[in-house]
Amino acid sequence: MEAQVGGRAPGVLPAEEEGPNARRIPPIMVRPLVDGGKPGPAAPGVEVGVGLLGFGAVGSQVYRLLEEGAERIARRTGWRPTVRRIAVLDPARPRAHPLPVHLLAPDAAAVVGDPQVEVVVEVMGGLEPARTLVLEALRRGKAVVTANKRLLATHGAEVSSAAAAAQAPLAFEGAVGGAIPIVKPLRETLAADRVRVVEGILNGTTNFVLTRMTRDGWALADALAEAQRRGFAEADASEDVGGHDAAAKLAILASLAFDAAVTDADVFREGIQEVAPRDIAYARELGYVVKLLAVGRDLGEAVDVRVHPALIPQTHPLATVEEERNAILVVGERAGPLVFSGPGAGGAATAAVVVGDILDVAGRRRRGSGEAAPARRPAGVPARRPVWPVEDLVIPYYFGLQVTDRPGVFARVAAVFGEEEVSIASIVQKSRGAVADVVLLTHEAREAAVRRVVARLRAMDVVKSVDSVIRVVE
Amino acid sequence: MEAQVGGRAPGVLPAEEEGPNARRIPPIMVRPLVDGGKPGPAAPGVEVGVGLLGFGAVGSQVYRLLEEGAERIARRTGWRPTVRRIAVLDPARPRAHPLPVHLLAPDAAAVVGDPQVEVVVEVMGGLEPARTLVLEALRRGKAVVTANKRLLATHGAEVSSAAAAAQAPLAFEGAVGGAIPIVKPLRETLAADRVRVVEGILNGTTNFVLTRMTRDGWALADALAEAQRRGFAEADASEDVGGHDAAAKLAILASLAFDAAVTDADVFREGIQEVAPRDIAYARELGYVVKLLAVGRDLGEAVDVRVHPALIPQTHPLATVEEERNAILVVGERAGPLVFSGPGAGGAATAAVVVGDILDVAGRRRRGSGEAAPARRPAGVPARRPVWPVEDLVIPYYFGLQVTDRPGVFARVAAVFGEEEVSIASIVQKSRGAVADVVLLTHEAREAAVRRVVARLRAMDVVKSVDSVIRVVE
Repeated sequence: MEAQVGGRAPGVLPAEEEGPNARRIPPIMVRPLVDGGKPGPAAPGVEVGVGLLGFGAVGSQVYRLLEEGAERIARRTGWRPTVRRIAVLDPARPRAHPLPVHLLAPDAAAVVGDPQVEVVVEVMGGLEPARTLVLEALRRGKAVVTANKRLLATHGAEVSSAAAAAQAPLAFEGAVGGAIPIVKPLRETLAADRVRVVEGILNGTTNFVLTRMTRDGWALADALAEAQRRGFAEADASEDVGGHDAAAKLAILASLAFDAAVTDADVFREGIQEVAPRDIAYARELGYVVKLLAVGRDLGEAVDVRVHPALIPQTHPLATVEEERNAILVVGERAGPLVFSGPGAGGAATAAVVVGDILDVAGRRRRGSGEAAPARRPAGVPARRPVWPVEDLVIPYYFGLQVTDRPGVFARVAAVFGEEEVSIASIVQKSRGAVADVVLLTHEAREAAVRRVVARLRAMDVVKSVDSVIRVVE
Repeated sequence: MEAQVGGRAPGVLPAEEEGPNARRIPPIMVRPLVDGGKPGPAAPGVEVGVGLLGFGAVGSQVYRLLEEGAERIARRTGWRPTVRRIAVLDPARPRAHPLPVHLLAPDAAAVVGDPQVEVVVEVMGGLEPARTLVLEALRRGKAVVTANKRLLATHGAEVSSAAAAAQAPLAFEGAVGGAIPIVKPLRETLAADRVRVVEGILNGTTNFVLTRMTRDGWALADALAEAQRRGFAEADASEDVGGHDAAAKLAILASLAFDAAVTDADVFREGIQEVAPRDIAYARELGYVVKLLAVGRDLGEAVDVRVHPALIPQTHPLATVEEERNAILVVGERAGPLVFSGPGAGGAATAAVVVGDILDVAGRRRRGSGEAAPARRPAGVPARRPVWPVEDLVIPYYFGLQVTDRPGVFARVAAVFGEEEVSIASIVQKSRGAVADVVLLTHEAREAAVRRVVARLRAMDVVKSVDSVIRVVE
């Protein structure tokens, strides 16, 4: 008779029990995880003056974490970041967390100009006045932490240059992917590697919508309404659905990954508005999942940056990322494929990494910038690079057509593809009475040729409609 | 007739084509991604003297990357790390990459003592002389980068204390998970959050073996031989199979995540030796996958740290991590569940993040330590905490038994569970002639009670064998 717990010889106490684990500590209750849980005197910590620009979902949580977690943070890191001033646009607005009015500055400039403020935390969002305030803080040599995706996607190079010129620390882990650590890994850990590819599911709302359409057969509008009901899609979801939000995040990630100044205007963008449940169902039959994918590729002289619905194989590392989760695939020449995933949004989550950034820049600032690196251009400020035109993409494509269901039609359709040198990889044809659905996957083809195919198909009497053309990312 | 590429109105050029993407750059060839690809004058960069201890799979790749990538790294970061001295145990040993003999030091102490060496990179592995050399380098105020898992798992607190006392930067991203960025995210990005749980698939060999057993029905020995043939399992795979490698990595991760000094000796450990194909098959029927799981939990006053085979639900974030891939789930109180995954090993991958660390510590060192944080204990040097005894675990368990196949037997078996207050959640029973397989999942039960059940079952004449008891991690 044999028995073991795992790999244990029967009747023999495992070696581990005679080791350090054998120290029988008295049965203890599992204590709730509260901040500052350990007893003892207040931990000393070097105070760091923080100025908060904005007190919304993220700002209020930053304040709360710094208040509630002060002892624990000081004990762990030796720093005691303390909010000294706060500026908000409208102090009278009702808020989920009460505004600490004793810290309220008359305006944002007073926060940036306060000599007690060493670290300016910009969590107000939007382009202006955020840009002016951040540039002014950097010019004064203050450290800046921002979670402002739009600011960095639009004026990233300007902000980085200002930081480099003033030798002022700048951190922005919270700007992409909520609490998913992706900025520092790209900026620091993989700085010596050559990253070829960044692919991401960067927008929670659209991923939730596509998940519901895929798994539960919901219509887009219903799934979107549910996302709004759950509170993670804005009432006006056009930034999400149109791919603007993902494009801004991709611009930031591509800039870091490829050491290039990429802005959101560089990113080719299509939203999920036209993705039909039928496409999702046919994609599944063919072994694919439909995602709103952000794709960045370093092609050497140019960068390829785009956000669009894509068929990805069910075995793709991002295929199983469901609901409102975000995930990022980074392929390093040496590091290989790395995947980072997490909730991707949320005030408390973003606040946690904003405070992580505060601790980081506090250390960098207090140490002084010292001997800076006299690079040809300021280090960390990437140059512009050409953007690969989407018409020159050479990738596989998915086609969904409706054709007249009679003999010879398919040969005529196929001939168009052949004449434009778009090679067909696989076909599904399903009769629905007088018309038939035709679903095609092509081999790699140039987008310009694909567009010519679309135009020619449209002109054919036997083609009822070209319902969808979706890019495939293998 | 409708046509669009994605969400595009028919016949209308997409707005993006009139924007920056419309700049038609002449058709260019995709250039191969070579280091220093951009033309132009040599990038200036501040030289950083590096001393290399070890020139094996990682060390030789660090050297190569610093040589081949020098221009690109200088252009990007402003730093030009340059290997000044190298020490190896046996200069005569044949190597995949030729040793740069002009840099060879008479011994490792000469590297550490060389005033030209600012950053000591310890990639020799093992406890001694690595420990002595690292401590000596830190004592001299040099920055240290190490990828030495065993050193940190055994002497992590001592090494951290030495770094804090000397105010010398210490980095070790390469010590866990190859190029997966996990050390800095836990140490810096999530420093302000409270991490409750770290779970990981931290050993590539055992994950490959279990994947093959699960997917292809291979025997453990055959899968292990294949892993060895592919070169990622050592000839002596006992460190992998027995869970030692994963335990060392968990000690490092738990120390960072829970701000506690956890050593590999603290980690309860069971290997995969006794996992049977039958358990894997029954687990699948019940909706679970069998993995060698590293589990770390912060229970408040104590930490729970263990490595053992575990049933995890097929929907668990680590359930789809296959082949030799590694992955780590981190659950932050605020950040929520984050997953990091990647190849987990490999000389070139680890070298890439080691160089990332070199760049990081170079910056920290050159800036000078300045005003350090006068914490109660040196910041970043966690205190010891009690380890939760495995007998006091309260989790579900999987049982695989063989019993005599006749009426009344099951009632007698179930009675034992009931008397020990181990509640049964589900049962699969399959007759195989005179005996029947009985597979049970329990509700949460105390491990001590589970052990009493095992002992009592073994003593029953109707129980042929208790083949396996595997912990369940939901």
